[in-house]
Amino acid sequence: MFVNPTQFAPHEDFDAYPRDENGDAAKLALAGCDLLYTPTVREMYPEGFATAIMVGGVSQGLCGQFRPQMFGGVAVVVTKLLLQALPDVAIFGEKDYQQLQVIRRLARDLDIPVRIDGGATVREADGLAMSSRNQYLTDDERRRAPELYRALTDAAPVLADGVPAAAVLAQARARLQAAGFGKIDYIELRDAETLQPIERVEKPARLLAAAWMGKARLIDNVPVAP
Amino acid sequence: MFVNPTQFAPHEDFDAYPRDENGDAAKLALAGCDLLYTPTVREMYPEGFATAIMVGGVSQGLCGQFRPQMFGGVAVVVTKLLLQALPDVAIFGEKDYQQLQVIRRLARDLDIPVRIDGGATVREADGLAMSSRNQYLTDDERRRAPELYRALTDAAPVLADGVPAAAVLAQARARLQAAGFGKIDYIELRDAETLQPIERVEKPARLLAAAWMGKARLIDNVPVAP
Repeated sequence: MFVNPTQFAPHEDFDAYPRDENGDAAKLALAGCDLLYTPTVREMYPEGFATAIMVGGVSQGLCGQFRPQMFGGVAVVVTKLLLQALPDVAIFGEKDYQQLQVIRRLARDLDIPVRIDGGATVREADGLAMSSRNQYLTDDERRRAPELYRALTDAAPVLADGVPAAAVLAQARARLQAAGFGKIDYIELRDAETLQPIERVEKPARLLAAAWMGKARLIDNVPVAP
Repeated sequence: MFVNPTQFAPHEDFDAYPRDENGDAAKLALAGCDLLYTPTVREMYPEGFATAIMVGGVSQGLCGQFRPQMFGGVAVVVTKLLLQALPDVAIFGEKDYQQLQVIRRLARDLDIPVRIDGGATVREADGLAMSSRNQYLTDDERRRAPELYRALTDAAPVLADGVPAAAVLAQARARLQAAGFGKIDYIELRDAETLQPIERVEKPARLLAAAWMGKARLIDNVPVAP
């Protein structure tokens, strides 16, 4: 358990980011976790630390455009945690789909001896993807927030039928605005593996979005199978 | 055994770099080597490869100034080779002293599970550090080349006595020019661990030089103990 400072920009919410170490530890124990590793920032980044990692391609665009420091910080901390623990398998949530693809690329490129698996996004009963940042939502915002997932799940089968993305995405964007979302960082159709932008679905794709509801930047994504 | 293309710049000597795989394999067998790994460039960098590593601090200046692409390429290939092989110990020659310090920093920062050891520079009878690039020297240049090591070994005790570096280095530089060296990329006194420039020896230091003799860029370095 480690909230990594190097993947937050100075203006972002590192200090405010919700933390509940004891509560999380209790939940992990209930789930059968035998060992929990909680390094300090000083242990991870001692004096003199000087190494940076960049993963090209899959880091470009989407969250990489709006949070340019993030994937560099993710790449370093994930490399360190994997090499400290040397697990056989590591699971990263599909809610952070671009991050998952960055980590797959990183592990493959550096020959990190691990199998990277995606974990299905866990959702509230109304479809909202679970996230630490959901705590930032007011009651009213919380009621509106599931529209992000609904807009994606409604658009996916239309895109899967081969309808060009531009019109479908414009409609989804309008729907989010009508639901009370503020700035929409992106809503885009991408190749499921390379994350290159695509206009029309011909092989496995992913529909991804990031949008602000009040103080919370929410992200979500769904598969689009041709 | 792998000559790594990504640490050569386009104008450098990757294609001409001396290679003798069979001869090297025979020497390794004589030295008791049981296993030799000789990946191809395609195996190391398959289609879609997209990861870069930067090691700050120790990569700055010295060879990092004259070959800015080099240490990034070294960091990636060394990370890959170490994670492919997962050795207990890896030995890097002290002739490439800055590279050795970059790799120590890299392994520490990324928690690569390996002990990095320096290997003493192996020299010809007249003191010239052995190097693949010595093959570029004509007979006349080969006779002059050991002056690089002699200039360093003569300057080291003077610096160790606490004499300020500027005058000592200027004298060593003049001596190299008199011996027929062409461009002197650098001759510098640095902290032995951080490689920060120093003016006067107060703790373990290193005297490092890179200079051209004909078509060969020769490097060498010696310890300076206070």
